[in-house]
Amino acid sequence: MEKHYIFTNSAGSFVFDEKLKLIENGSEKALKQKYKTEEMSNENIKKILHNFRRNEYYSKFREDAIKETEQKIRKAANEDVLIVNAIDSIEETGRISNTLAKRVREWYELYCPEFSRSIESHEKFIELILKKSRKELMKEIGLEEKETLGGELRKEDLDAIMELAKKVQELYILREYEEKYLEKMMKKHCPNVTALTGYLVGAKLLAHAGTLKRLSEMPASTIQVLGAEKALFRHKRSGAKSPKHGLIFQHPFFSRSKMKNHGKIARILSDKISIAAKVDYFKGEPIGDTLRYELEKKFGGMLV
Amino acid sequence: MEKHYIFTNSAGSFVFDEKLKLIENGSEKALKQKYKTEEMSNENIKKILHNFRRNEYYSKFREDAIKETEQKIRKAANEDVLIVNAIDSIEETGRISNTLAKRVREWYELYCPEFSRSIESHEKFIELILKKSRKELMKEIGLEEKETLGGELRKEDLDAIMELAKKVQELYILREYEEKYLEKMMKKHCPNVTALTGYLVGAKLLAHAGTLKRLSEMPASTIQVLGAEKALFRHKRSGAKSPKHGLIFQHPFFSRSKMKNHGKIARILSDKISIAAKVDYFKGEPIGDTLRYELEKKFGGMLV
Repeated sequence: MEKHYIFTNSAGSFVFDEKLKLIENGSEKALKQKYKTEEMSNENIKKILHNFRRNEYYSKFREDAIKETEQKIRKAANEDVLIVNAIDSIEETGRISNTLAKRVREWYELYCPEFSRSIESHEKFIELILKKSRKELMKEIGLEEKETLGGELRKEDLDAIMELAKKVQELYILREYEEKYLEKMMKKHCPNVTALTGYLVGAKLLAHAGTLKRLSEMPASTIQVLGAEKALFRHKRSGAKSPKHGLIFQHPFFSRSKMKNHGKIARILSDKISIAAKVDYFKGEPIGDTLRYELEKKFGGMLV
Repeated sequence: MEKHYIFTNSAGSFVFDEKLKLIENGSEKALKQKYKTEEMSNENIKKILHNFRRNEYYSKFREDAIKETEQKIRKAANEDVLIVNAIDSIEETGRISNTLAKRVREWYELYCPEFSRSIESHEKFIELILKKSRKELMKEIGLEEKETLGGELRKEDLDAIMELAKKVQELYILREYEEKYLEKMMKKHCPNVTALTGYLVGAKLLAHAGTLKRLSEMPASTIQVLGAEKALFRHKRSGAKSPKHGLIFQHPFFSRSKMKNHGKIARILSDKISIAAKVDYFKGEPIGDTLRYELEKKFGGMLV
């Protein structure tokens, strides 16, 4: 019985005889039923490739390549990218509401500088000026309205300030909404890192690494200085002190401990984050809470 | 009859006899009724000033000075400052809504990149994605929904994008509101400059000068390069070309004319603005519209 070789590529399946002459092409399944086929040796494959130099195959290959790329692009809208977009948006919204809040203060200080100076939190300031009259606000800081150094604004001047203040307040609300969304995403996509670092620090680390895959591949020492690239390269270049921590510095462990312990905490914490990221990426058994608990115990004496 | 001298300062009125001995103090009116008083010569005033070196007068003077300063501060919340705050806020809101709009685009492009690329105006883009589904938007650019390279987002992912988009839209609305407020203020406070330059350019000039008073005191050549200080001082320092125009370049005359005429237009326009600002400050007869009309006629051949 004559030997038949089968060769399959994205343009379909092809059956060749012993002399490597093309006999028939079609679906792999149909051809395998019709012929008793053998796989082709690599050497022979080289010999038959000239068969595919025809234009019709070129366009077929091209189309297939495009389709495959399109599929990849479609899949690019995955959790990683959504999380990166969310954290970027949260940071942007935060920056912007602060800028606008400062603008409201500057403007409002024409009307009641005393109250603006008495309160530090932008958010609280915006909330109160929207809710209370100047008289009430002055009373809150123990003054009478007539004592203010602010001028008498007409209603429409005050309205313009308040319109801006309202928008700032809405931006604060938007930020809360976005944070809730991010928290949900992080708990689902990186439950272990989130348990260990909180969703904000976790998302920042993820955004900095680009993807969870890349974060999971990073050694602990890289995670430790992630976000402190500038200081790190200054250290490498000119022998300045190496940074002790990058983004992870925003972890509450640092504000809860003394400066002299920061290096140690950063080293151990980034070690655990590196483990948690691997577990998240490979969907292993949850260990985030355990890691966090261990750290709390380990750092016990250093934390307040 | 004995001569009496009266001397008045912020601590009240004082009557002295011929030997410059203090006889009585009180309100000016009462004292003038009681005594036949004469004003004191400058020389004598010098001699009696030691009477006011007492502590009680010091604190009285201090209080009066503070009161006067407070009054000045209260009056500082005038049209000038309100306009400067409004134009600053408009520019900030504009910058911020653009930044956020770009963020919405980046995020939305995970879902439907084709539509985002097809439309240049941020404002229009935001409006349409809030109003229409992806299917409708793809149809508008002549494509079917399945052709998109965007991924399939869950409802909550899409919601997060749309919440941000809504805020951007509201910022656009806020900006319109602020612009209307500014226009009203400018038409009232600087009607002539506004008639000549439009309220936005006018307000920017005013904000740059600080007050209408200062703008009205500026020579035309300063107004011409207001806002181009960097280029002006580069010119003074190193002999680079002098700037032809600063802020006034945003006047529609410039986009309506050829480059080679810009210098001439800037010179004549700033000349008229300088006149208009003086009329505005001294509340003279309205001439803004006439100036504008004259310029339109004068530049006739240069404008499209």
